Amino acid sequence: MRSAPLPGTLSALPTTARRAGTRAGGRARWGSIAEALRRALASGTLQPGQLLPSTRDLAATYGVHRQTVMVALDSLCAEGWLRAEARRGYRVLPPDPALPATERRRRPSFRFRPARAASVAPPALDGVRFPLHAATPDPRLLPRAELRAAYAHVLARDPGPLDHDDVWGNAALERELRGYLQRVRGLSVERILLTNGSQEAIALVARVLLAPGDAVAVEDPGYAPAWQAFRAAGAEVVPVPVDDRGLRVDELAALLRRRRVRLVYVTPNHQYPTTVTLAAPRRRALLDCTLAAGVPILEDDYDHEYHFRGVPQPALAAREQAPHVLYVASLSKLVAPGVRVGMLCGPLDILEAMAQERRASVRAGDAVTQAALADWIADGGFERHVRRAKRVYAERREAALATLARASQRVPLRVAAPDGGLAIWCEWPAHSVLDLARRALARGVAVLPGPLAALEAPSQGLRLAYGRVTPRVFAEGVAILVAEARRS
Amino acid sequence: MRSAPLPGTLSALPTTARRAGTRAGGRARWGSIAEALRRALASGTLQPGQLLPSTRDLAATYGVHRQTVMVALDSLCAEGWLRAEARRGYRVLPPDPALPATERRRRPSFRFRPARAASVAPPALDGVRFPLHAATPDPRLLPRAELRAAYAHVLARDPGPLDHDDVWGNAALERELRGYLQRVRGLSVERILLTNGSQEAIALVARVLLAPGDAVAVEDPGYAPAWQAFRAAGAEVVPVPVDDRGLRVDELAALLRRRRVRLVYVTPNHQYPTTVTLAAPRRRALLDCTLAAGVPILEDDYDHEYHFRGVPQPALAAREQAPHVLYVASLSKLVAPGVRVGMLCGPLDILEAMAQERRASVRAGDAVTQAALADWIADGGFERHVRRAKRVYAERREAALATLARASQRVPLRVAAPDGGLAIWCEWPAHSVLDLARRALARGVAVLPGPLAALEAPSQGLRLAYGRVTPRVFAEGVAILVAEARRS
Repeated sequence: MRSAPLPGTLSALPTTARRAGTRAGGRARWGSIAEALRRALASGTLQPGQLLPSTRDLAATYGVHRQTVMVALDSLCAEGWLRAEARRGYRVLPPDPALPATERRRRPSFRFRPARAASVAPPALDGVRFPLHAATPDPRLLPRAELRAAYAHVLARDPGPLDHDDVWGNAALERELRGYLQRVRGLSVERILLTNGSQEAIALVARVLLAPGDAVAVEDPGYAPAWQAFRAAGAEVVPVPVDDRGLRVDELAALLRRRRVRLVYVTPNHQYPTTVTLAAPRRRALLDCTLAAGVPILEDDYDHEYHFRGVPQPALAAREQAPHVLYVASLSKLVAPGVRVGMLCGPLDILEAMAQERRASVRAGDAVTQAALADWIADGGFERHVRRAKRVYAERREAALATLARASQRVPLRVAAPDGGLAIWCEWPAHSVLDLARRALARGVAVLPGPLAALEAPSQGLRLAYGRVTPRVFAEGVAILVAEARRS
Repeated sequence: MRSAPLPGTLSALPTTARRAGTRAGGRARWGSIAEALRRALASGTLQPGQLLPSTRDLAATYGVHRQTVMVALDSLCAEGWLRAEARRGYRVLPPDPALPATERRRRPSFRFRPARAASVAPPALDGVRFPLHAATPDPRLLPRAELRAAYAHVLARDPGPLDHDDVWGNAALERELRGYLQRVRGLSVERILLTNGSQEAIALVARVLLAPGDAVAVEDPGYAPAWQAFRAAGAEVVPVPVDDRGLRVDELAALLRRRRVRLVYVTPNHQYPTTVTLAAPRRRALLDCTLAAGVPILEDDYDHEYHFRGVPQPALAAREQAPHVLYVASLSKLVAPGVRVGMLCGPLDILEAMAQERRASVRAGDAVTQAALADWIADGGFERHVRRAKRVYAERREAALATLARASQRVPLRVAAPDGGLAIWCEWPAHSVLDLARRALARGVAVLPGPLAALEAPSQGLRLAYGRVTPRVFAEGVAILVAEARRS
């Protein structure tokens, strides 16, 4: 095959190369030579099989060093345009038999069509000065020096956690949390699957246990993010009412007799959003009627320790006769929202199935944070912090109840003093608490209006979270709510 | 209602209480009184509506301070057994109308039945001394002091990242990564959805774009964890062959004409597992035939920068005429396996749908690590590290190729010298590379055998990862492989 004359495109090159060369020296110059050759190759000016002029000739043509030309040509070899042949030079690759005939685009524009969207974004909370909407812990209470030391400690290990992406999570953290659940919650578990907060745990349970069309019984009002996870798995969410002793177990039992339910999701310790504790006699009945029907329970015990009257009741999963209970807990609800460590407990074989689902969907959580938390728990820092934080929350709870007692002299509030949880549920006389919440938001006060957490339950309730704000901020927020409620 | 006489259970109590009292003082003593009363309540010895004896009488009966009795009784109130009545004392709650009639357990035993299991666990790798199986970066190369400083810095902020669980991920990190993609990969994106590594990004795309029964075209051999994510969404994975210039685009085009395909998943920069770079002419053809068919592409550009010949070609997503390309990248493949930060890029409306899916399935990743990485990137540490690591990998690659050249004098190896990626694909003369891999594993050498990454493609290939081991460890591992191959 003969050596190619410089095609038209190539003759025009030196100008381009010189102009580009003023930008950034060698790299820009070889880059612009490569680009011009690339265009000649793509347009067919340089033909398959054709041998290029010698690098010496090309260098002279472009007015650059021969080395610069060779860098450009080697780059085009790497891209699959040329190949280098010993003692001959660079040749344009023969036509690729694996290239399809050129197709005309029938569809010059393109639109993605999602098969589904699983949830609805919450309202934006920019400009909120009184964040009473989230019953989350207050990260300002955290012992930052302890946490810094724990992170520094694990980052000093070589290679340490940075080399790990275990599906089950950090083994040391898993061990520490097993000890914690045993010591503090009286719950013996064989193993914990660590997840990205409780949300991932709930979603894994949903995807592994549920098939499209399955029914899941949930508390109403209840935890809407869990409903989203069940619905994302194609399941239907069926409401069971809640009263001042928690889930109406009689209604659940009737539902289980009436139709095939595949899962019961409950928050017995501090019902979300009302914070009511499920009464002890109902717990036994709940376990009995679900076991009799062969329906598993998913127990979400998200902030067990933040209980202020007596000791928290043992988890359902801690009972005998609870072989059908899966248990989920979370450090994001005990420590800080940014600490995305959830725990999923249950029989080993079903946890294995969840781990396989996790391998395909997330693979692993953050290795550094998990290792640092393991150190912090082992050193006793975590339990110290939870005890200390609980004292602060107990004070904030008293102050919040006093604030609401004063407020109820101005508007006829009904306040349910909670035994636990970081929020207080109260009923407002406003025509619509949704409207009240919207007007409060406009004045910088964010709250959770009951209807956003309800399926069928009528609700005049607002949930006011006191855990993450000072008593003064809480009182100022409530004052604005009261003013708005009186205006309506 | 009359005051109850002490039932039989109660008369028997003092012994129990005293015995328990020796354990841990006050707490244990009130706890055991509460437990005895609880049993009396559960068994019906104490009847609904019944008034309990006075706390003074109970204290005398149990031989404890009155305060101890009151703690026990208050705890039982909290559990939903009793209520306190002003000036009367404690009364057993009346029967709960929401309790169902007691049900006999038809099913004393219970078994969880998973609706599906999504993936298969890889073999255990305990005792592996020569880890040539994972083409991941070497975390020993990381500048630990810089990382420690970044973590310490963000943990000093109050409340800082610990207060965040944003679905989209840390905003500062997102901004830094957008800048990085623009600067280093020439890719302009409006927004990045941050995920837990590339696996979550792929799984989100699968769950949002695919419906059960949909077909996804994938490279064969290819990246099995992506197949698992597609299958978990109910999709069918359809193989398209790969040759020494990458994906056979002609075969893909024929497939698109033959049947309805909903997604094409490709690794064009360094094909997984062969590390072949998709030739430039095929890239244009790939974009054309998919756009003509209206089928979106998911481009996985997992370790773009680790390219050692010329500069990496621009991503498909960086081209004009690529409105149908979603782009996924990952820091776990650039920095360390334990850094679980993936990136998903695409048109804003489809990213919104992915974010909603994420809200229901994972909610957020680790806030502390994300904030620390944002600082590290902003300070230039990340890019410095990638440049430095790339030089080390380039040396290890040369050494690995030299090792394999020597090895090929003892067994007839075919080595494909890669332009990039942290692994080398080579074909072994063994009857079965699966068997060879198994025997090597027994001697402490882990490799990826081709058949584990193949759907239909016949494969004598082994992928040998050189990035995370020293040249000496690589050479020792290869020596064991050669010895085993010669024995077969």
